[in-house]
Parts: sequence; structure tokens; C-alpha cells
Amino acid sequence: MLSIEDNNLLTQTGPDTPMGDLFRRFWLPVALSREVGTFDKGPTKVNVLGEKLIAFRNKDLSIGLVDSMCPHRLANLYWGRNEGDGLRCVYHGWKFDKDGNCLEQPAESEQTCFKEHVKLRAYPAREAAGVIWAYMGPEDKQPAFPEFEFALVPEDHTYSSKRLQLCNWLQNLEGELDTAHVQQLHAHEVVEGSMIALAPRYEIKDTGFGMLMIAKREGQDGTAHEGKINWRMTPYIMPAGTLIPQTPDRPQHLTFAVPVDDTNMLGFTVSWRANRPMDDADMKRFEEDDILHLRVDPKTFLPLANIHNDYLIDRASQATETMTGIAGLRMQDVAVQEDMGGPIAQRHREKLGSTDLAIVMMRRKLLSTLKAMQNGEEPSHPSDSAAFKCRSVFAEESATKTWQEVFLAAQPEGSVISLDA
Amino acid sequence: MLSIEDNNLLTQTGPDTPMGDLFRRFWLPVALSREVGTFDKGPTKVNVLGEKLIAFRNKDLSIGLVDSMCPHRLANLYWGRNEGDGLRCVYHGWKFDKDGNCLEQPAESEQTCFKEHVKLRAYPAREAAGVIWAYMGPEDKQPAFPEFEFALVPEDHTYSSKRLQLCNWLQNLEGELDTAHVQQLHAHEVVEGSMIALAPRYEIKDTGFGMLMIAKREGQDGTAHEGKINWRMTPYIMPAGTLIPQTPDRPQHLTFAVPVDDTNMLGFTVSWRANRPMDDADMKRFEEDDILHLRVDPKTFLPLANIHNDYLIDRASQATETMTGIAGLRMQDVAVQEDMGGPIAQRHREKLGSTDLAIVMMRRKLLSTLKAMQNGEEPSHPSDSAAFKCRSVFAEESATKTWQEVFLAAQPEGSVISLDA
Amino acid sequence: MLSIEDNNLLTQTGPDTPMGDLFRRFWLPVALSREVGTFDKGPTKVNVLGEKLIAFRNKDLSIGLVDSMCPHRLANLYWGRNEGDGLRCVYHGWKFDKDGNCLEQPAESEQTCFKEHVKLRAYPAREAAGVIWAYMGPEDKQPAFPEFEFALVPEDHTYSSKRLQLCNWLQNLEGELDTAHVQQLHAHEVVEGSMIALAPRYEIKDTGFGMLMIAKREGQDGTAHEGKINWRMTPYIMPAGTLIPQTPDRPQHLTFAVPVDDTNMLGFTVSWRANRPMDDADMKRFEEDDILHLRVDPKTFLPLANIHNDYLIDRASQATETMTGIAGLRMQDVAVQEDMGGPIAQRHREKLGSTDLAIVMMRRKLLSTLKAMQNGEEPSHPSDSAAFKCRSVFAEESATKTWQEVFLAAQPEGSVISLDA
Repeated sequence: MLSIEDNNLLTQTGPDTPMGDLFRRFWLPVALSREVGTFDKGPTKVNVLGEKLIAFRNKDLSIGLVDSMCPHRLANLYWGRNEGDGLRCVYHGWKFDKDGNCLEQPAESEQTCFKEHVKLRAYPAREAAGVIWAYMGPEDKQPAFPEFEFALVPEDHTYSSKRLQLCNWLQNLEGELDTAHVQQLHAHEVVEGSMIALAPRYEIKDTGFGMLMIAKREGQDGTAHEGKINWRMTPYIMPAGTLIPQTPDRPQHLTFAVPVDDTNMLGFTVSWRANRPMDDADMKRFEEDDILHLRVDPKTFLPLANIHNDYLIDRASQATETMTGIAGLRMQDVAVQEDMGGPIAQRHREKLGSTDLAIVMMRRKLLSTLKAMQNGEEPSHPSDSAAFKCRSVFAEESATKTWQEVFLAAQPEGSVISLDA
Repeated sequence: MLSIEDNNLLTQTGPDTPMGDLFRRFWLPVALSREVGTFDKGPTKVNVLGEKLIAFRNKDLSIGLVDSMCPHRLANLYWGRNEGDGLRCVYHGWKFDKDGNCLEQPAESEQTCFKEHVKLRAYPAREAAGVIWAYMGPEDKQPAFPEFEFALVPEDHTYSSKRLQLCNWLQNLEGELDTAHVQQLHAHEVVEGSMIALAPRYEIKDTGFGMLMIAKREGQDGTAHEGKINWRMTPYIMPAGTLIPQTPDRPQHLTFAVPVDDTNMLGFTVSWRANRPMDDADMKRFEEDDILHLRVDPKTFLPLANIHNDYLIDRASQATETMTGIAGLRMQDVAVQEDMGGPIAQRHREKLGSTDLAIVMMRRKLLSTLKAMQNGEEPSHPSDSAAFKCRSVFAEESATKTWQEVFLAAQPEGSVISLDA
Repeated sequence: MLSIEDNNLLTQTGPDTPMGDLFRRFWLPVALSREVGTFDKGPTKVNVLGEKLIAFRNKDLSIGLVDSMCPHRLANLYWGRNEGDGLRCVYHGWKFDKDGNCLEQPAESEQTCFKEHVKLRAYPAREAAGVIWAYMGPEDKQPAFPEFEFALVPEDHTYSSKRLQLCNWLQNLEGELDTAHVQQLHAHEVVEGSMIALAPRYEIKDTGFGMLMIAKREGQDGTAHEGKINWRMTPYIMPAGTLIPQTPDRPQHLTFAVPVDDTNMLGFTVSWRANRPMDDADMKRFEEDDILHLRVDPKTFLPLANIHNDYLIDRASQATETMTGIAGLRMQDVAVQEDMGGPIAQRHREKLGSTDLAIVMMRRKLLSTLKAMQNGEEPSHPSDSAAFKCRSVFAEESATKTWQEVFLAAQPEGSVISLDA
């Protein structure tokens, strides 16, 4: 359980909230590249961290990400005209570039230099793996863009998606770190290659990028061969990312929760293959099943199965086949996460068990980081952006190897992960 | 009129409110048996008194009524799996019986006895006349289940329904006690057998079960024969039930208002015949007219005619035929009750007349009961549950009889109603 | 910019707010005559200034405009029965005339004279140009009905419409006074006869009815011939009306913003010809284009193009043809006005330029009037109602004439406008 006060601290992420400030120290996924499209498409609404933003593409392919309110008389720039080198407010024709500079004010005299006193809030934006990433924090604290492995491979080695999830961001992150639910919630329908049987022993380690959750299963229960250990290692990438444990032959997957506001979030999933393009079987799996990526309404990004249709629950299937009667592993996660006593769980009412260790540790890490920030300390952020070049682990290895050896052996070339952080 | 403070007292019924505590001293109708269905149907949402509950049936036909939040991490038990002897939370597989005991925690070690420290909030539930009744108050104050006459006859002697009404519960109860509106609101379409003509003289008496409202009409105006008195007696059963006056040859009807929250309520109507099953004519009347029972949407229980379609009002019919242009006596009641300056009437703005006596007396009785409870006194509750075995009266009797004689003569065998309470 | 406090002052108009009091000193358009219809149509809901009212027509063609709550037990009089000489509440049959007197109380004794102590809130209502106008202020401060020119011509010389606009009233009024946006927002689609080219020089003058905004363009830029001046004069009629500048051969148009509540408003447009009926071309323009009058849903008065369908924006047309991609000048106004950082602009965030002068002056005039009222001074209101008999100006005149000469020459006969107020 958390105190009401600590729960508020972790769940509130608007401007000028402590957790909001922490989110704003990292590059965050905020939209899909295909949403923003080419420069002749209109502007795109991007609502994150309680802010209403507008994304647009320039002719030089760069991305603008700016406040939705024109600084003149606050008209919505969503109605704006994308002129390829800037966005023009339709009300009085003021035009701004992607850095927020005011380029034109047609009805004002040039002599007053009024436009030099006008600035539109603008955030740096980058693209990687078909996702637009933004840094929304103070200019002087902007970190280098993280060298995620998927940001370094060709785009056809990747597949990304976004969904709107109707709950606070933390409920999703907790689910991603929660190994114990897999055998229950997803009974009879677990991700191929990631099947696990019994409750493991856990260890949680601090790392440069966040934490590493290590689940260890030994041979006696049939989950590993004699003399071997079955390892499942989940990197938690601050503030809200996780890598789903996968065997080396399968794609890796990053999941990332970004708050829209305190009761809605965007769930991004980035899948990648290190060494080859996605093939037809990969794409079919991503686009037709609700296992990793969800089928969503193309306008709202709300999943087709959602709270309004009871996630298309099939009570007969629930009685005889699956735990939930809800199709698709990711859909099952969304269903339980969206209502934990409402969209913001009142964590002072919880009764946590021994399997909730990773959740407890993650909350503690965030709370101690927030406390440090309130004392003027910056959150630890790897100085070398290659520290984000990491993979999850799902493997059976000789019992003579330590978890450090197993983890580091699975990492991509050029990774500089420190396990002593 | 009521002071703003007293109005708040009577209209707020959530947990830890005075009126909420009063409701929680009585057995209340909370759902229909046919909603909950058999054990292989999924759980059913039951939202009453500001609480979100889940009902489910066991294989032994008993009913579970429990908090919707799993005590572990607050997942909604509506997604739960009904296993016939308990409900399993799908998130981590914790299983609970109808008394709220935790039976299983698959991922926790048996040795810690953790499950013995976990309890799901659960309320006693009973069935009578196709309705599920619950007691939601403190365990040590639980009264015996009331011996309503309909709870003692075979189920085919009864017919029950439920509707969602979009207003505070008190607006409905006031309407049930308001004799004066019958000739106006329902002009040209009143319940057969209950027709009354002119404003009567009233008396209101305290009784063990609540109050008895007595309307007396004498012969001179043609409503009764020479030397006779026309009596119409409405029992008000604390906290929110009334019996509609009916002649002995027709079914009796209990109506009961149960708050969902402060701006929504469930209206239950239980009809019964003491001595024989309902016949086809009865059923046709209940299922096709909107006189006593309403046609509702089977999922939401919102009446088919409702505020969103202006109750299907027919202004031409209103101009020439009926007072309201709205079809169905019960529907007319709902239409005026749902908007009395909004869903919660601001009773400090009222101008009550002489015909509002029963409403005034009922409010006073509730307020004095609340005040007594705040001083540590329990609300008076008949020690003998046969005190609830009562009928309404609609009859013409010799003027030589007192109201007590008339009332008691109409009561069923075994009734122990005290008129001196 | 405005302080947060001043912004609240100007945007809040419910009962007992300063700006609400100011609105209540004037006759206001509140509904269309065709909405209320004939006496055998049911009552009509009229929601203005945070009050819920009911309009109905009597057999003598007069209009009743009364509180929606019956004073007895607050039932909604919208369900009431219009009996041609008053409205009867359907709950208990109390009947009221258009002045709020209680005519009947069927279930109460005549002897108590109870009905003489009961009064329904009622406001004086008048009709002009197919619009119902009401005075909602204190009885002793009621001004004469303004002699707008459209109120004096035959009804077939007029055309009126109403739209629901989803924002605070002030955003609309500011748009009406904002000359500078015309060349931008409406680029390539401006009202015929009102075309203007470059930013003008402004003057703003106080007048008896409010303010006169004078835009002056001289010959050198091609907007006027040698030795001539192009004048565009917009009367602002307190508290929320404006006349759109028009050449003498075209109809004049009044626009008027009336708050429903603080985030919704009704926009009335009254068009009139002084000397002849509207012709087919006029009607076609009013009913088919979205230039002055909008096509709206007949029940809700929400425009067919609205925020829920992105105003039917055509991004391709925006890229190549018009500034907005939204069809219809009035529709373009609505689109930008409805979202200026939300339905209530936070004016402390604005950056006003030199072309926003008229907006600044109007705000100042309202604020100083509010301050005066708080000191017990009444808002200045012309003692002669012919002061409202005025027209806008759109004309080219000899440079030797003063603006006063030009304005007064354009006014209708009988006008008594003082330019020294």
C-alpha cells in the first residue's frame, strides 16, 4: 500500500507536479509518425502530461511540436495552416516555426518588432521506429536522445503502435512489472516463447536506465532442465518503459506508458528485430491478434474491445476455457488495469503480497527520486545514451552462471549498461 | 420547506452519512433474481447507496453480494470467474466465498497464512418475490428478515420489476405518499380500482413499520354511499417503502426506492396476490402498460420513455385528453419526479400546501430518527418481523367503524401490527 | 490581457454576478418567435444567463416567460399544459398566468387564499423581427423597449436566426468587434459589399447606445479613390450587440451574444431591410450559406458543422484555396471562437497587438460600468429609446467630411443618436 499522499505524488503528472517534472526529464513517445503524416496533412493533436499540443511536419521532414494556443488571443492552432516551414494561426495569420519563433504578423506594423516579443511554446521532437519522441523539460537539462536498439536499426526492422487506455499511467506500468499475474490473468493464452509455470524467486537491481527485475526458476519444477536455470529479466526503463522478456529468436518489445492526463494514458509498444526486417508472420501477429499490439479505432486510438462493450467478454469461454473470457493477452491487461477501484487506484486500500515485490521497488525508486528532486538533485540519467541500448532476457542457462553474466551476454553490441548504478 | 441542511441530511445516503446509516439498518431490495441468474452466468453489478457491489449465485443457489474491489490490488471483481462456490479475481487468481473469506491465493506461499489476513467486504443477501434483498449495516444490528406477505406466498403469486430513475430517492418516496396529485397528474388515466374524486381529509399515524396515511372521503360528494366512508390507507414502511391502496380483489403492490447514489435511484415494485397465482390478465397489465411496472431497457433498466426522449410526450393528447400527454401512470410519476429543479429538489424553495401533510410528516419522522441515531439511539424496528406483514386498504365501510377497525380487518392472518407505536 | 479577476468579472453572468446584473439591465433576445409557435404548441425551454425558463404563448398572442420550477414542489413547468390563458403544472394542477400570478390550486381550499401568497417568477417579454426579447432585471429599473430599426419595419422586411455556440459569450462579442481578422480568417470568402484590404486606422467613440468603432482607410493603397476616404463603422450596442458594416443597398445585420451559462451562448442574428421585404436572393443567402445565418439542428440549434465533426474542415481546400478550409464566414468565426484555450479564454495569457484596440476599449467600458454599478450607479442607458435606432456604415466619402458627418448622414429618420455620450 501507499499513503494517499504518496499515491497522489506518483499519479499526478500535469505541469508543475513533482511526477510531471520527473517525466519531463526524459525523452517520451508522444505520437506515431503515421499520425502526423506528410507536411500537407493538417496539424495533429497531441495531448500528453496534461498539456494540449499540436504536432506538424515541415517540408524538410522535421517535426514541430508546439502549444495548441496561439499566444496572441489563444485560438487553437489545430485549425492552423501548415505551410511547410511553419504553422499559421488562421484567426489573425500569425505564423510560427517549429522552434516557436513568430515569423509573421500580417496586421501588425513591422516597425514595432512586436513579433520578436512573441514566442510560442515549442518542444524538441525526434523520430525513431515510427514513433515521435519529445523532450518537454527545461532546455538546459535536455539529455541526449537515448540509443535504444530500435532507434538504430532500419525502420522496416520495427513495428510500433499506440493505444488510448482509460486509466492512470501507473496502473499500466505496474502491470508490466508484475510477473505473478501471467499464470492467472493470461491462463491458457500466454505469449509464445515466454511461458512460465510457477512463482519464481525474484531479485530487483538498480541500473543506469532504471531497474532490472530478475525472475529465477530452477529445475526441480520442470521449468528448466537439470543443472540449468530459467531466467526471465525485465528491464524497467525510467520513468515508464519496460522490455517484455523474450527469447533471442523473437522480436524484442518496449512498452511505454505516457499520461494524457491523470485518468487517461497512451500505451506505446515498439517491437523490433535486431538483424532483419519484420516478416509476414510478425506483421500478422501484430495486426490481427490483441496479444502485443491492439486493434484500435483509427481516430481515437481506443481499442475496439473496450470498457463500453465489456471488452467483448465471453462468459461461456470464461467458464470453460480461459481465466477471463476476454480475447488477447494485451486486452486482458487493459481490462483489469482500467478499473482498479476506478481509473486511479486508491493504493492505501491494497493488501500487497510477496509477489508484488517489483511493484513495491519501482514505487520506492520513483518516490526517492521525487524526494531527491525536491531537494534540488537531478534524477540520475545515464551520461552515455548507449546505456539505453538494452534487451530483455528469456533464457535457460547453466546454473554456474551468475545473473550478471547471463544478462550482459544477451545485450547488443555497443551497449554500455552498468549494473552497479 | 426544509432547511438546506435538513435537505442534505435526507438526500445524502453514501457510506458514513446519517441517512445512509439509517438505510443500512433495514433489509433493502437491491437487484432482481433474474438479473443474477444461475451460477454459470457472470457476476452482476449492483450499485446502491453509493457502493459498487457485485452479486453472484453459488451452486447451492445462495447469493453472494460483495465489494467490487478485490482487496489485493483493487481489480474489479465484475471480470471475476464465478466458480460455483466462490468468485475468483482474474488478475492474480485470489478466490473469495460469499462471506468474503479468501479461499485461495495461487502465487502466495501457503505457509505465510496471508489469506487469513485478507477479507472481502460481503453483505448478507436473501431472495423473496424474485427480488434480492440485502442488509448492508453493522453485523451486530442485523434484524430478522421482514415477513412481508409477498415473501411468504409461492413465487408465482408475485411479480417484481426494477427501474432506474434519474433522481434522488426522496423525490420518489414523496410521490408515493402524495395522494393529492392523483386527480391531477393522472387525470383520465388512474389505476382501476383506486379511483378517487375529491380532496380527502387526512390522518397520519405512527406504526411499528413506519407510518399509516389515512385518507377519508364521506358520502356527500358521491365518492361513498350514504352512511358509508371511503377509506384509502397507505402504509409507509421505513425507510423507503409504500403499499399502494388497492381493493381486496386486486393484487397488492409494494414500491420501494433505493438510492444508487444521490442523483439516481432504483425503483422496485413487488406485486402479489395472497391466495392465487398471477393470471394472464395480471401479467399483460404488468408487462404491457406503464401503469405499475415499466417497460425498461434490459441492460440499463432505464425506462423506454425517459428524459432523453421527453417521455414520448404527445402535446396534442395533452391539449385534449390527458393532463400530461405522457402514457402510463407510473411513467407520469417518473416524469415529474426526475426534474424538480433538477435531480435533487432544493426544498428550501418549496411552498407546501395543506395536501402535503403526509410528505411533511414522513420527513419529520426521518429527521427525528436521524437525530435520535446521532444521540446513540437505534431507529425503532419491530422486534417481531411479522409486523411487516401488512396490506394497504381501499374500501367503503359503514361510517360507524373506526379507521383502526377497518385497517386491522383488512390485514392478513398472522400480522402483528401495532397501531400504538 | 486581463487579470484573472477581471476576466472572471466579464465572463460570469449567472444570477447575482456583476456582469449578470449588467446584462439584466437591458432587453435581450432570448428565443425565436417560431420556436414558441402558437398557443397549442407545448411550452419551450429558454436557458439564458444561468436561469432555466419556460416560454409559452397565450391565446391573445402575448408571450409568457417564467421560471421553469413550479413554486409548489419545484416540478418542471416544461411538462406543463398551456391552456391559452396560463400554464398549468401537471403535478398538482396549479395554474399561473404570464405575470406569474397563481390562478388555481385545485386541491387547496379556496378559503385560505393560499394562492395569493404564491408567485411564479415571470419576466416581461416582447417580440420584434421574429425574436422574443426579455427584460430579466429589477422591475423598477425596466427601460423602454429599444426602437431598433428592425423593430419598426414590417416583419417581412426582417429575417432572424439563432445558433448555439459552445463558448463564453465574450469570445463572440470580441470577434464581432475585431476588424483585423477579416482579411485573415475569412481570406477568399468575405461578405460581399464589406470587402476590405489593408489594416486601417481606428478610432473608438463612446455613444449613448455603447461605442462606435470607426475604421478609416485612405486612398493611397487602392481601397478608396483619390480624395476619398473608405469608412467602416461598427456600432457596439451594450451589452452584447453589434451591427455589421454594410453598404446602403444591402440588408443591415444585428448580431447579439446572450449567455446560456458561462461556457455556452446563443448567437442571434437579425437582418433587416429598411424599405422593402427580403427577396428570394436574400432568403437563399440566409438559408443556404453559412455566411451570416447558420444552418443548425432544429432541436438543439447546434450548427450542422460543429466541433464534434471538426467543422467539416477540408484540409486540401485549406492548403490551396482558403485560409481555414472551413466553409462559410460565420462558421469560421464560430470555429476559432469556440476554442480559445477552451470555452473560456484565459485572457491573462494573451499578447494583444495594435489591432486589438476595439476589443481593449470594449472590455474597459464594461469593466468601468461594472465598477460604477458596484458603487450604486446605474449603467448609462439612453433615456430616449430612439437612440437604438441606428445603422452601421460602409461607404466611401469625400475626404473633407468628418466621421460624425458620415455616420449621422447614414442614420435612419427619427434616430436621436448622441455622439457625445
